[in-house]
Amino acid sequence: MDSKGTPVSITLPESVQVFRNLKTAKRFAIDIGGSLTKIAYYSTIPYRRVSYDKDSAEDAQNDTFTYTLSEGARLHFVKFETKYIADCLNFIAAHLVNSHEEMTGKSIKATGGGAYKYTNLIHEKLGLSVDKEDEMLCLIKGCNFLLKNISDEAFMYHRNGNPEYEFQTAHTNIFPYLLVNIGSGVSIMKVESEEKYERIGGTATGGGTFWGLGCLLTNAKGFDELLELAEKGDHRHVDLLVRDIYGGDYKSLGLPGDLIASSFGKICHKKDKNENLTEEDVARSLLFAISNDIGQIASLYAMIHNLKKVYFGGYFLRNHPLSMHTISYSINYWSRGGVQSLFLRHEGYLGAIGAFLKGAEEWDGDKYSWLENYAGSSGLKTGSLLLESNVPVHQLELDRWEPALTYCPLLKDPANYVPDTVDLNADQEAREYWLKCFEEKIDTFVTRAKSSQPHNDTANERAMLFKEKYIKRLQHLKIQPFAYGNLTVRSLLDTIEHYLREFDFPDPFLLQRQQENDYTLTMLKNRLNELDQMEVNVRHKELIVSFLAGNIFDWGAKEIAKILDTQTFGFEQAKEKIPSRPWLIDNLDKWIARMKDPPYKKVAIFVDNSGADIVLGVLPFVRELLRQKIKIILCANSAPALNDVTYTELTILLKKVSGICSIIEKAVNDETLIVIENAQSGPCLDLSRLGKELAEELRTTDLIVLEGMGRAVHTNLDAEFTCDSLKIAVIKNPWLAKRLGGDMFAVICKFEQVTN
Amino acid sequence: MDSKGTPVSITLPESVQVFRNLKTAKRFAIDIGGSLTKIAYYSTIPYRRVSYDKDSAEDAQNDTFTYTLSEGARLHFVKFETKYIADCLNFIAAHLVNSHEEMTGKSIKATGGGAYKYTNLIHEKLGLSVDKEDEMLCLIKGCNFLLKNISDEAFMYHRNGNPEYEFQTAHTNIFPYLLVNIGSGVSIMKVESEEKYERIGGTATGGGTFWGLGCLLTNAKGFDELLELAEKGDHRHVDLLVRDIYGGDYKSLGLPGDLIASSFGKICHKKDKNENLTEEDVARSLLFAISNDIGQIASLYAMIHNLKKVYFGGYFLRNHPLSMHTISYSINYWSRGGVQSLFLRHEGYLGAIGAFLKGAEEWDGDKYSWLENYAGSSGLKTGSLLLESNVPVHQLELDRWEPALTYCPLLKDPANYVPDTVDLNADQEAREYWLKCFEEKIDTFVTRAKSSQPHNDTANERAMLFKEKYIKRLQHLKIQPFAYGNLTVRSLLDTIEHYLREFDFPDPFLLQRQQENDYTLTMLKNRLNELDQMEVNVRHKELIVSFLAGNIFDWGAKEIAKILDTQTFGFEQAKEKIPSRPWLIDNLDKWIARMKDPPYKKVAIFVDNSGADIVLGVLPFVRELLRQKIKIILCANSAPALNDVTYTELTILLKKVSGICSIIEKAVNDETLIVIENAQSGPCLDLSRLGKELAEELRTTDLIVLEGMGRAVHTNLDAEFTCDSLKIAVIKNPWLAKRLGGDMFAVICKFEQVTN
Repeated sequence: MDSKGTPVSITLPESVQVFRNLKTAKRFAIDIGGSLTKIAYYSTIPYRRVSYDKDSAEDAQNDTFTYTLSEGARLHFVKFETKYIADCLNFIAAHLVNSHEEMTGKSIKATGGGAYKYTNLIHEKLGLSVDKEDEMLCLIKGCNFLLKNISDEAFMYHRNGNPEYEFQTAHTNIFPYLLVNIGSGVSIMKVESEEKYERIGGTATGGGTFWGLGCLLTNAKGFDELLELAEKGDHRHVDLLVRDIYGGDYKSLGLPGDLIASSFGKICHKKDKNENLTEEDVARSLLFAISNDIGQIASLYAMIHNLKKVYFGGYFLRNHPLSMHTISYSINYWSRGGVQSLFLRHEGYLGAIGAFLKGAEEWDGDKYSWLENYAGSSGLKTGSLLLESNVPVHQLELDRWEPALTYCPLLKDPANYVPDTVDLNADQEAREYWLKCFEEKIDTFVTRAKSSQPHNDTANERAMLFKEKYIKRLQHLKIQPFAYGNLTVRSLLDTIEHYLREFDFPDPFLLQRQQENDYTLTMLKNRLNELDQMEVNVRHKELIVSFLAGNIFDWGAKEIAKILDTQTFGFEQAKEKIPSRPWLIDNLDKWIARMKDPPYKKVAIFVDNSGADIVLGVLPFVRELLRQKIKIILCANSAPALNDVTYTELTILLKKVSGICSIIEKAVNDETLIVIENAQSGPCLDLSRLGKELAEELRTTDLIVLEGMGRAVHTNLDAEFTCDSLKIAVIKNPWLAKRLGGDMFAVICKFEQVTN
Repeated sequence: MDSKGTPVSITLPESVQVFRNLKTAKRFAIDIGGSLTKIAYYSTIPYRRVSYDKDSAEDAQNDTFTYTLSEGARLHFVKFETKYIADCLNFIAAHLVNSHEEMTGKSIKATGGGAYKYTNLIHEKLGLSVDKEDEMLCLIKGCNFLLKNISDEAFMYHRNGNPEYEFQTAHTNIFPYLLVNIGSGVSIMKVESEEKYERIGGTATGGGTFWGLGCLLTNAKGFDELLELAEKGDHRHVDLLVRDIYGGDYKSLGLPGDLIASSFGKICHKKDKNENLTEEDVARSLLFAISNDIGQIASLYAMIHNLKKVYFGGYFLRNHPLSMHTISYSINYWSRGGVQSLFLRHEGYLGAIGAFLKGAEEWDGDKYSWLENYAGSSGLKTGSLLLESNVPVHQLELDRWEPALTYCPLLKDPANYVPDTVDLNADQEAREYWLKCFEEKIDTFVTRAKSSQPHNDTANERAMLFKEKYIKRLQHLKIQPFAYGNLTVRSLLDTIEHYLREFDFPDPFLLQRQQENDYTLTMLKNRLNELDQMEVNVRHKELIVSFLAGNIFDWGAKEIAKILDTQTFGFEQAKEKIPSRPWLIDNLDKWIARMKDPPYKKVAIFVDNSGADIVLGVLPFVRELLRQKIKIILCANSAPALNDVTYTELTILLKKVSGICSIIEKAVNDETLIVIENAQSGPCLDLSRLGKELAEELRTTDLIVLEGMGRAVHTNLDAEFTCDSLKIAVIKNPWLAKRLGGDMFAVICKFEQVTN
């Protein structure tokens, strides 16, 4: 710890990118399938964070923060072919800090068929005893966990559709559903709650059948090679189609001519077995036969049990487009559209997650949430990482968040809430723009990152690695935009934050924010006097304009950062940038009219940037509301992101402001004005993931205010609430402004009232 | 026609046993599947029957009957492999009396996928235009027809069970059911009535898949060869079992260790593909995979639509035990016992029957019934007949019965009524006894047959062919007792009658019956006088004893035939044979007591033999009831069988008796006593197949009397009725008497009253 803010570099990026954090690995679980093995472990990860000395904050200036070493928690899931199990166990044993002897007596949770076969090997390699856990229970626990915690975990697949991958928002209300786990065989489970579930069926026609018959019928060397063959073949040489029998459609029954009437039905009509027949054709026919069959059986079970959603897990699908397409088609066809087939980005990890949670029941409840770490997780259909240059592995890393997260209670339709305004998977033009935009913007972050740690001798290297990895990710997303769920401006911003933390740049904008806060504080008293002298209607308008002008000060916006860098741009200049009315969305008059009605009881404001934004834009607005005896909750980011004011900063800032404004001083003291952290660590706002304390406060809120592009344009522009809402933002990106029908600095002033 | 009763031999048995009666073939239908073709046609068949000159009956003696030529109708269904279609069409064309030219302009109903492909061939060979009929409609029509008309058409299959084949009685109430037609692919239809049905699903994993994959994986030359391989293999070398994964049962889920977890799932674990693997093993695994799958999908559809019965049709099963077992097991397992899987003896003919009926809608209703001709139909799992020594075919022949048949309305539980007392499929000891017994008895029939046509020069030859064929059938039934449905004493007796007609011995016992009737008529007057002088209680007992004594005179019973042949055995001797009381079943006292109560309103008596039985046993009993003003219906056989009195004979006999007894004379004249034919043509009684006129009369009957071994012991001993019933018989077979706990001549006097 260095109280002067000089970073102590505690971690260089690990040279090994797989099986990370083994040194502090604590609890292990393993899911050994016939084909794939998944190892789960939990480790604590040290990370630096910025702390404030709250007591000295009012007196001191720039030296009120320190870097402190914190301990976070991370869940690691590593997936590899079972044939490499010994290599992987050896690697773990070699990299554990705890010696073999220390592990003795401890246990590992194990599930999957191989749990029986490999008990001795695990014990020998790791010195752990093996606790076998029920496979179904683990699968279901794992599935529930993913659906509740991981954004965009589940998706519908539309081959040749736009979007090809239609992701679903993570829900707290996930039940009931059907879980179809396709391993060697298929298990079908009805899941009604965490506690109530039942294996209602299955079929022996599964992945083992595909691969077994594939072995006998083709020369494919592996499962994936067999899938590749299938992708290339033409099943019409092998399967008997409706048209082969009836010459066309069987219209009276509604059977289209190209429907398969009999899988492999054409073989027996061929005089020579191999006539016109390639192994690609056979592989495709086989894939169709088995996928169709599983889809049909799954949809029949769903219909019997009146379930609308079927999730698929296991090793067979491997998110293979042709398989997902066939199963989706089959489910839709047989259920006549009544059943939805949903695939999982992490379908292979269900059992391992479940087994791990069995060993850590206390985590599976209200205490924590888990967020996917975009820096350490493999994407959908992404190539393997390599362990010691010969063992291909895939990874999933989840970072712990305390406390558990929940929905904003003010959302009108929480089940169908989607934070993001634009889906970059579906919108190609927007995707191309934003990927390019972020690629161009990355140098700003690199510069900030380096300058935030001027005395650190690895900062340059880390900053360059950060850039390299992020650019690589952007390139990957150009080809596979669906790799990490919905591609959105939010996910691109979150990825930057994850990568910065990954390379130990916990807060590149820290100094910037501090300087701006302190600078604008000096202007606050005069500004408040100016406002107080205005006639009330004029003042209400001026408060909104100030709110907007403050929001122009945003280092996250590429175009703005350029202006701000000129150092000659002040609050007055910002006000001049606000366009003349009517604005792009202009409910100002309605707002001013509402101000004359009986006041709101409680207002929650999701604030945006430090500096002019919070000090000259938000706080005068807050002060006006406080005069009307309204309770105010300022919702600020929990973790730093760009120049967004953080919860801690805002708390200190209010103390400072209390010395300038007595109304705010009184409100802080009597808790009419409070700050609550919003559980976000990026510049956007996902209202399905708020802390429980905030959610509780929001329950009695009658106005929600969302400020800034991240919170009111990229996300939540279309969000509907059960109370009145005010969305305030200046569009600081010319492309986006044009997209929305306006120009640079176009104004969003969207005030929506609910009628009771 | 020869009025002296000398048979005119109009038919020598056809040398060609297949495609019979083509000369008079009229209407054709064809069902062309990818694998098998089925041709249906209707022909009239000339047959001799015995006629009585009713008007002269009272005056004449032995010369009151004549042989007349009648025309019956027969439905033929011939099944062969589609590859022989040209041979078969050629054969038909060559044997049709109607020339090619005459057929021109007429049409053939056609269904099945091949209907499209072979239109030109049919037209070219037969000169018929082709009317294509909807395949589903034909399948359903055919299935309804078989279930309603053909005894023991449907069965459950219990591999290693006793009985292995559990047949179901033909029903009029067959709906609703699920029909699963397994051709190349599988169609699943919900059938709610003749008019209301729907294809609710299907799967492309069917017979074509089995045979197609079988072609690729084995060297089997044909479908049946592939099934034979499957019968010999061991799927455990190929399939991954639950035990292979979990080391035993997966107890918490109730999955037994030997359940298949993954079909073909062991292949990919083998280092060398062919390690320990035979094509027999692969074929068995394949059969299991496909049968299991079809069974599971069928049971799921049945559950969705709340149907309890699933019938299987099509070419895949071929009544192959292993396939039926797998499907039954699968259905039972997945429906948890809630769905019954039923197979059809004539599964392959559904489409052809339906297509034929489409061309003859008027037959599919109330006008006719159809009875399986045991002489011309192929049995279950019976080898093929040969067409011109190289084309193997199977046949089904149905003889028309007018009018339509229906249930006896007095049956307590018509849906579960089984006529036969003993199931010889299940009862090995009984089966062995009766097959031997019939084999020993056959010479009696041969002798009778020959002597019934003393002046006919082909009689000897025909009689020997009759014997040869029947002996062959008995030998076949020793090995495959289930070949023609339930094996029972009734079916063995019916088979004799079918064979006798087949070889043009329409009524070998005709003279015998006439002589006995005439002889016993001479004794009737004295007997009536004796009875009239008895005290009423004594008389009631004596009437039952006479009834029993009369029933001893039965040429159908081997042991009795020997006694009767001695010529010294008279009615008094017969009465002495009646054992002392208590009889084997002895409700005599209850019957006598009932006689003192208010009389019945209407009594139906199902009578047995000619001679002493009807004249000295039944008629005095009838006369006593007539005195009580009871309406009497005498139910007599429609067609001759052994020495059972026929409807026509009994009508004439009553005229003669009217000259002897005024009570009977009056009753005949005022129709208090009537004779109705019972629609039977054998010595047993199937109360599910009665003529509609009789059924209507029975509706208001309050006592039903069943007489003789055929009607009250071999059948109906355990039948329950909604009115009072009296079953009267003497057991004239020592083995059966012992079986039932008695001795030779043991008496059944079973009187059951219903309490209202």
